[in-house]
Amino acid sequence: MQLTSYTDYSLRALLYLGTHQGRLVTISEISEFHGISRNHLVKVIHNLGKSGLIQTVRGKSGGIRLAHKPEEIILADVVRLTEPHMNIQECFSRETNTCPLIDSCRLMGVLYKARSAFMQVLEEQSLADIL
Amino acid sequence: MQLTSYTDYSLRALLYLGTHQGRLVTISEISEFHGISRNHLVKVIHNLGKSGLIQTVRGKSGGIRLAHKPEEIILADVVRLTEPHMNIQECFSRETNTCPLIDSCRLMGVLYKARSAFMQVLEEQSLADIL
Repeated sequence: MQLTSYTDYSLRALLYLGTHQGRLVTISEISEFHGISRNHLVKVIHNLGKSGLIQTVRGKSGGIRLAHKPEEIILADVVRLTEPHMNIQECFSRETNTCPLIDSCRLMGVLYKARSAFMQVLEEQSLADIL
Repeated sequence: MQLTSYTDYSLRALLYLGTHQGRLVTISEISEFHGISRNHLVKVIHNLGKSGLIQTVRGKSGGIRLAHKPEEIILADVVRLTEPHMNIQECFSRETNTCPLIDSCRLMGVLYKARSAFMQVLEEQSLADIL
Protein backbone atom coordinates (compact mmCIF):
# COMPACT_ATOMS: atom_id res chain seq x y z
CA MET A 1 0.00 0.00 0.00
CA GLN A 2 1.59 3.24 -1.07
CA LEU A 3 0.93 6.62 -2.60
CA THR A 4 2.27 7.17 -6.13
CA SER A 5 5.59 8.92 -6.69
CA TYR A 6 3.51 11.58 -8.44
CA THR A 7 1.89 12.42 -5.10
CA ASP A 8 5.27 12.19 -3.39
CA TYR A 9 6.81 14.71 -5.82
CA SER A 10 3.80 17.03 -5.58
CA LEU A 11 4.05 17.13 -1.80
CA ARG A 12 7.82 17.68 -1.97
CA ALA A 13 7.38 20.55 -4.45
CA LEU A 14 4.78 22.17 -2.16
CA LEU A 15 7.10 21.70 0.84
CA TYR A 16 9.90 23.42 -1.07
CA LEU A 17 7.64 26.32 -2.08
CA GLY A 18 6.37 26.57 1.47
CA THR A 19 9.87 26.94 2.90
CA HIS A 20 10.85 29.50 0.22
CA GLN A 21 7.97 31.93 0.39
CA GLY A 22 8.44 35.57 -0.53
CA ARG A 23 10.36 34.81 -3.72
CA LEU A 24 9.87 32.98 -7.01
CA VAL A 25 11.30 29.47 -7.25
CA THR A 26 12.38 27.64 -10.41
CA ILE A 27 11.58 24.06 -11.33
CA SER A 28 15.32 23.38 -11.78
CA GLU A 29 15.93 24.47 -8.21
CA ILE A 30 13.38 21.96 -6.82
CA SER A 31 14.67 19.30 -9.21
CA GLU A 32 18.22 19.75 -7.96
CA PHE A 33 17.36 19.96 -4.28
CA HIS A 34 15.15 16.88 -4.34
CA GLY A 35 17.01 14.89 -6.99
CA ILE A 36 13.80 14.51 -8.97
CA SER A 37 13.99 14.40 -12.78
CA ARG A 38 13.08 17.77 -14.31
CA ASN A 39 10.71 16.08 -16.78
CA HIS A 40 8.68 14.51 -13.99
CA LEU A 41 8.63 17.75 -12.09
CA VAL A 42 7.35 19.78 -15.09
CA LYS A 43 4.23 17.57 -15.17
CA VAL A 44 3.79 17.79 -11.41
CA ILE A 45 4.08 21.60 -11.44
CA HIS A 46 1.75 21.90 -14.42
CA ASN A 47 -0.88 19.89 -12.57
CA LEU A 48 -0.48 21.88 -9.34
CA GLY A 49 -0.80 25.08 -11.38
CA LYS A 50 -3.91 23.90 -13.22
CA SER A 51 -5.56 23.08 -9.92
CA GLY A 52 -4.85 26.57 -8.57
CA LEU A 53 -2.46 25.47 -5.80
CA ILE A 54 0.52 27.30 -7.29
CA GLN A 55 1.01 30.37 -9.49
CA THR A 56 3.39 30.68 -12.42
CA VAL A 57 5.05 33.97 -13.31
CA ARG A 58 6.38 33.86 -16.87
CA GLY A 59 9.41 35.67 -18.19
CA LYS A 60 13.17 35.79 -17.71
CA SER A 61 13.05 36.21 -13.94
CA GLY A 62 9.85 34.19 -13.66
CA GLY A 63 9.14 31.17 -11.53
CA ILE A 64 6.52 29.60 -9.33
CA ARG A 65 5.07 30.25 -5.88
CA LEU A 66 2.23 29.04 -3.70
CA ALA A 67 -1.12 30.51 -4.72
CA HIS A 68 -2.43 30.28 -1.16
CA LYS A 69 -1.14 30.53 2.40
CA PRO A 70 0.29 27.16 3.56
CA GLU A 71 -2.44 26.92 6.22
CA GLU A 72 -5.03 26.99 3.43
CA ILE A 73 -3.53 24.03 1.53
CA ILE A 74 -5.10 20.88 3.02
CA LEU A 75 -3.07 17.70 2.54
CA ALA A 76 -6.15 15.59 1.77
CA ASP A 77 -6.99 17.92 -1.13
CA VAL A 78 -3.47 17.53 -2.54
CA VAL A 79 -3.62 13.70 -2.31
CA ARG A 80 -7.07 13.59 -3.93
CA LEU A 81 -5.72 15.80 -6.72
CA THR A 82 -2.56 13.80 -7.38
CA GLU A 83 -3.56 10.17 -6.83
CA PRO A 84 -4.95 8.66 -10.05
CA HIS A 85 -7.64 6.98 -7.95
CA MET A 86 -8.31 6.04 -4.38
CA ASN A 87 -9.49 2.49 -5.15
CA ILE A 88 -8.03 0.43 -2.33
CA GLN A 89 -9.22 -2.71 -4.12
CA GLU A 90 -10.54 -3.34 -7.64
CA CYS A 91 -14.13 -3.62 -6.35
CA PHE A 92 -14.05 0.13 -5.55
CA SER A 93 -14.67 0.67 -9.26
CA ARG A 94 -17.44 -1.17 -11.10
CA GLU A 95 -15.46 -0.70 -14.34
CA THR A 96 -12.46 -2.70 -13.13
CA ASN A 97 -14.22 -5.09 -10.78
CA THR A 98 -14.07 -8.83 -11.51
CA CYS A 99 -15.15 -10.12 -8.09
CA PRO A 100 -18.55 -11.87 -8.16
CA LEU A 101 -19.17 -10.89 -4.53
CA ILE A 102 -19.30 -7.14 -5.25
CA ASP A 103 -22.94 -6.74 -4.25
CA SER A 104 -22.87 -8.81 -1.09
CA CYS A 105 -19.31 -8.61 0.27
CA ARG A 106 -18.78 -6.73 3.51
CA LEU A 107 -15.04 -6.34 2.99
CA MET A 108 -15.60 -3.36 0.73
CA GLY A 109 -17.41 -1.52 3.54
CA VAL A 110 -14.53 -2.20 5.93
CA LEU A 111 -11.98 -0.95 3.38
CA TYR A 112 -14.06 2.17 2.72
CA LYS A 113 -14.04 2.86 6.45
CA ALA A 114 -10.26 2.30 6.59
CA ARG A 115 -9.70 4.66 3.65
CA SER A 116 -11.86 7.30 5.30
CA ALA A 117 -9.85 7.00 8.52
CA PHE A 118 -6.65 7.48 6.47
CA MET A 119 -8.00 10.53 4.67
CA GLN A 120 -9.47 12.02 7.85
CA VAL A 121 -5.95 12.41 9.25
CA LEU A 122 -4.93 14.31 6.09
CA GLU A 123 -8.10 16.46 6.21
CA GLU A 124 -6.90 17.84 9.54
CA GLN A 125 -3.41 18.77 8.33
CA SER A 126 -2.36 21.68 6.16
CA LEU A 127 0.93 22.40 4.42
CA ALA A 128 1.69 24.81 7.29
CA ASP A 129 1.55 21.90 9.75
CA ILE A 130 4.36 20.04 8.01
CA LEU A 131 6.72 22.90 7.18
CA MET B 1 -3.36 4.29 -3.22
CA GLN B 2 -4.31 0.65 -3.32
CA LEU B 3 -3.63 -2.76 -1.87
CA THR B 4 -1.88 -5.25 -4.17
CA SER B 5 -3.88 -7.85 -6.10
CA TYR B 6 -1.98 -10.39 -4.00
CA THR B 7 -3.78 -9.08 -0.91
CA ASP B 8 -7.04 -8.91 -2.84
CA TYR B 9 -6.75 -12.59 -3.86
CA SER B 10 -5.73 -13.67 -0.35
CA LEU B 11 -8.79 -11.99 1.16
CA ARG B 12 -11.04 -13.49 -1.53
CA ALA B 13 -9.63 -16.97 -0.88
CA LEU B 14 -10.24 -16.58 2.85
CA LEU B 15 -13.78 -15.33 2.17
CA TYR B 16 -14.44 -18.41 0.05
CA LEU B 17 -13.06 -20.75 2.71
CA GLY B 18 -15.08 -18.93 5.35
CA THR B 19 -18.34 -19.44 3.49
CA HIS B 20 -17.55 -23.13 2.79
CA GLN B 21 -16.58 -24.34 6.24
CA GLY B 22 -17.10 -27.97 7.22
CA ARG B 23 -15.62 -29.35 4.01
CA LEU B 24 -12.37 -29.28 2.07
CA VAL B 25 -12.14 -26.80 -0.81
CA THR B 26 -9.89 -27.06 -3.89
CA ILE B 27 -7.81 -24.31 -5.41
CA SER B 28 -9.52 -24.92 -8.78
CA GLU B 29 -12.88 -24.25 -7.16
CA ILE B 30 -11.77 -20.83 -5.82
CA SER B 31 -10.03 -20.09 -9.13
CA GLU B 32 -13.23 -20.76 -11.08
CA PHE B 33 -15.56 -18.95 -8.72
CA HIS B 34 -13.41 -15.83 -8.52
CA GLY B 35 -12.01 -15.91 -12.06
CA ILE B 36 -8.47 -15.72 -10.66
CA SER B 37 -5.66 -17.52 -12.51
CA ARG B 38 -4.83 -20.85 -10.86
CA ASN B 39 -1.10 -20.02 -10.94
CA HIS B 40 -1.60 -16.85 -8.94
CA LEU B 41 -3.84 -18.63 -6.52
CA VAL B 42 -1.33 -21.44 -5.88
CA LYS B 43 1.18 -18.85 -4.61
CA VAL B 44 -1.50 -17.11 -2.52
CA ILE B 45 -2.62 -20.38 -0.92
CA HIS B 46 0.97 -21.48 -0.30
CA ASN B 47 1.64 -18.22 1.55
CA LEU B 48 -1.56 -18.45 3.60
CA GLY B 49 -0.64 -22.04 4.48
CA LYS B 50 2.92 -21.14 5.49
CA SER B 51 1.61 -18.44 7.80
CA GLY B 52 -0.74 -20.89 9.51
CA LEU B 53 -3.98 -19.26 8.37
CA ILE B 54 -5.11 -22.27 6.33
CA GLN B 55 -4.51 -26.03 6.46
CA THR B 56 -3.78 -28.31 3.53
CA VAL B 57 -4.94 -31.92 3.49
CA ARG B 58 -3.00 -33.90 0.88
CA GLY B 59 -4.28 -36.81 -1.15
CA LYS B 60 -6.93 -37.64 -3.73
CA SER B 61 -9.82 -36.15 -1.80
CA GLY B 62 -7.62 -33.49 -0.22
CA GLY B 63 -8.03 -29.76 -0.22
CA ILE B 64 -7.73 -26.71 1.99
CA ARG B 65 -9.66 -25.23 4.89
CA LEU B 66 -9.30 -22.44 7.43
CA ALA B 67 -6.90 -23.31 10.25
CA HIS B 68 -8.77 -21.05 12.68
CA LYS B 69 -12.30 -19.89 13.37
CA PRO B 70 -13.18 -16.87 11.16
CA GLU B 71 -13.51 -14.69 14.28
CA GLU B 72 -9.86 -15.41 15.08
CA ILE B 73 -8.56 -14.24 11.69
CA ILE B 74 -7.96 -10.50 12.01
CA LEU B 75 -7.99 -8.56 8.72
CA ALA B 76 -5.04 -6.37 9.74
CA ASP B 77 -2.91 -9.51 10.21
CA VAL B 78 -3.84 -10.75 6.73
CA VAL B 79 -2.95 -7.40 5.13
CA ARG B 80 0.37 -7.21 6.99
CA LEU B 81 1.13 -10.74 5.80
CA THR B 82 0.26 -10.19 2.15
CA GLU B 83 1.36 -6.62 1.40
CA PRO B 84 5.03 -6.54 0.33
CA HIS B 85 5.46 -3.43 2.49
CA MET B 86 3.39 -0.75 4.10
CA ASN B 87 5.59 2.14 2.95
CA ILE B 88 3.09 4.85 2.09
CA GLN B 89 5.97 6.93 0.70
CA GLU B 90 9.59 6.11 -0.12
CA CYS B 91 10.82 7.87 3.04
CA PHE B 92 9.22 5.10 5.12
CA SER B 93 12.27 3.03 4.24
CA ARG B 94 15.80 4.39 4.67
CA GLU B 95 16.97 1.95 1.98
CA THR B 96 14.78 3.42 -0.75
CA ASN B 97 14.63 7.02 0.45
CA THR B 98 16.06 9.76 -1.77
CA CYS B 99 14.42 12.76 -0.08
CA PRO B 100 16.93 15.05 1.64
CA LEU B 101 14.28 16.14 4.16
CA ILE B 102 13.96 12.69 5.75
CA ASP B 103 15.27 13.76 9.13
CA SER B 104 13.34 16.99 9.46
CA CYS B 105 10.13 16.59 7.44
CA ARG B 106 6.87 16.42 9.36
CA LEU B 107 4.93 14.89 6.47
CA MET B 108 6.24 11.43 7.37
CA GLY B 109 4.71 11.71 10.85
CA VAL B 110 1.36 12.69 9.36
CA LEU B 111 1.47 9.76 6.92
CA TYR B 112 2.41 7.35 9.72
CA LYS B 113 -0.63 8.58 11.65
CA ALA B 114 -2.86 8.14 8.57
CA ARG B 115 -1.55 4.60 7.99
CA SER B 116 -2.18 3.74 11.65
CA ALA B 117 -5.76 5.02 11.34
CA PHE B 118 -6.23 2.81 8.26
CA MET B 119 -4.83 -0.27 9.97
CA GLN B 120 -6.76 0.38 13.19
CA VAL B 121 -10.02 -0.16 11.30
CA LEU B 122 -8.70 -3.54 10.07
CA GLU B 123 -7.46 -4.49 13.57
CA GLU B 124 -11.05 -4.32 14.77
CA GLN B 125 -12.46 -6.59 12.04
CA SER B 126 -12.18 -10.35 11.68
CA LEU B 127 -13.00 -12.64 8.77
CA ALA B 128 -16.26 -13.47 10.59
CA ASP B 129 -17.31 -9.79 10.37
CA ILE B 130 -17.17 -9.78 6.58
CA LEU B 131 -18.68 -13.20 5.80
